[in-house]
Amino acid sequence: MKEHNILTESKQILIRFSEVDSMSIVWHGSYVLYFEDAREAFGRKYGLTYQTYFDNGFYAPLVDMQFEFKQPLVYGDTARIEIEYVPVQAAKVVFRYRIFREKDNVLAAAGSTTQVFLDSRYKLVLYNPDFYTEWKRRNNVL
Amino acid sequence: MKEHNILTESKQILIRFSEVDSMSIVWHGSYVLYFEDAREAFGRKYGLTYQTYFDNGFYAPLVDMQFEFKQPLVYGDTARIEIEYVPVQAAKVVFRYRIFREKDNVLAAAGSTTQVFLDSRYKLVLYNPDFYTEWKRRNNVL
Amino acid sequence: MKEHNILTESKQILIRFSEVDSMSIVWHGSYVLYFEDAREAFGRKYGLTYQTYFDNGFYAPLVDMQFEFKQPLVYGDTARIEIEYVPVQAAKVVFRYRIFREKDNVLAAAGSTTQVFLDSRYKLVLYNPDFYTEWKRRNNVL
Amino acid sequence: MKEHNILTESKQILIRFSEVDSMSIVWHGSYVLYFEDAREAFGRKYGLTYQTYFDNGFYAPLVDMQFEFKQPLVYGDTARIEIEYVPVQAAKVVFRYRIFREKDNVLAAAGSTTQVFLDSRYKLVLYNPDFYTEWKRRNNVL
Repeated sequence: MKEHNILTESKQILIRFSEVDSMSIVWHGSYVLYFEDAREAFGRKYGLTYQTYFDNGFYAPLVDMQFEFKQPLVYGDTARIEIEYVPVQAAKVVFRYRIFREKDNVLAAAGSTTQVFLDSRYKLVLYNPDFYTEWKRRNNVL
Repeated sequence: MKEHNILTESKQILIRFSEVDSMSIVWHGSYVLYFEDAREAFGRKYGLTYQTYFDNGFYAPLVDMQFEFKQPLVYGDTARIEIEYVPVQAAKVVFRYRIFREKDNVLAAAGSTTQVFLDSRYKLVLYNPDFYTEWKRRNNVL
Repeated sequence: MKEHNILTESKQILIRFSEVDSMSIVWHGSYVLYFEDAREAFGRKYGLTYQTYFDNGFYAPLVDMQFEFKQPLVYGDTARIEIEYVPVQAAKVVFRYRIFREKDNVLAAAGSTTQVFLDSRYKLVLYNPDFYTEWKRRNNVL
Repeated sequence: MKEHNILTESKQILIRFSEVDSMSIVWHGSYVLYFEDAREAFGRKYGLTYQTYFDNGFYAPLVDMQFEFKQPLVYGDTARIEIEYVPVQAAKVVFRYRIFREKDNVLAAAGSTTQVFLDSRYKLVLYNPDFYTEWKRRNNVL
């Protein structure tokens, strides 16, 4: 059985006042930004950002996005986002996320995102683009 | 077999410039607002808004939120959000959403949200609050 | 003395839950969206939207944005945004905004925005583009 | 003539994909968050955050917010926000902001914010609250 590398990145964030709603807890929509922050940090670490896609002639929009909210985060909390790359055969980029409240290491939220490839004319690409296959090979997640 | 009412609401929105990303399509995070707009319109139609929860001594934060993106929306598009209440036995408020591009009636996105009840001290409430059971009975979704 | 037309538009909005902060009043950043909503409504009424600029080979980014907050708006409030076009000689698009709380007609906020023209290579355009001069003439604000 | 301390803080930010609009430059509304980030960083450095106000029985909402946009920021840019406390006699908290593009140290944007004090019943406070006068004295900005 083949073994993959497990690619992960971790990012600390400080909850902003503007991210909190009138219940004084982080508004659910703010987690979209936290996932994006983690995805960007991952991308910079492993060389797979929006810019990478674009420079290779592709877009990589999300087609699926899921969130579970377990415990509230409040203004002033520090949170740690852990992102993990999920290897799949299909022409997709899948990530799993877990957000922890730093002060007690409690799992605050979890979720996943799936991206597909569009070419420069916004047409869905059903095969894995070469640059992506190469990226997978280089990172031992093929 | 018991039959429920099907409670729905429909809301038209015009895609804002600020909701579009550098791919010139609606940014995935904007859909959180579209779902919220639909939930609010539903709430006003059937008397079940954040204010309703609050006036009865409860909060109703989201614990689950899911999105599927099928076709892009662009700046200037008109979209129609259809929201449907999903009756469940548990002390939860569940909605399903579908977003259509008005010009060709294509399904652009779909998803769901689940809310639970917290009491005024932010403790999870495991039973259906009286006001909610009464609301369900009144709307024939019990 | 030459007299200009006064071009205005008015738009009603319902305050969203997500626009309110933990003080339970509308977060100051939400007003950026309200101004944008008004600008878009104005643009559709008079034919001067982001799309109009783009179709004529220009961008029109903001270079100045000012807000005064007078009275709070809260979740569930209805507000009325009034936008007025401010004629200037320079190659700029200037708007003034006033936001009223509908229930008591109190002025909640006021402000202004200024846009300039960039050509398709993002270079500042110091003259009034032809399409804009024509638009001004047609609307008697030249 | 009395001399004040000059209180400043500086914060680096990395431009997010979601902050960029379809012109591929940072959307003007994103600067509200950048100013907030700087204000928060200042507050943590000098002990004057939303939490400080709240713990002393006050709110400190914005009553004025101004932005000038000089040069665009793009996705992937690093920016440096410099915030400076502006001492005034009135019961207000005033900050000035300058945002620089790190790669060439060009001034990208500037602006200011003014906050006032509300008591716990949301009534405007016309005098400087004791905790704030004490804070000013401690920091030699009285």
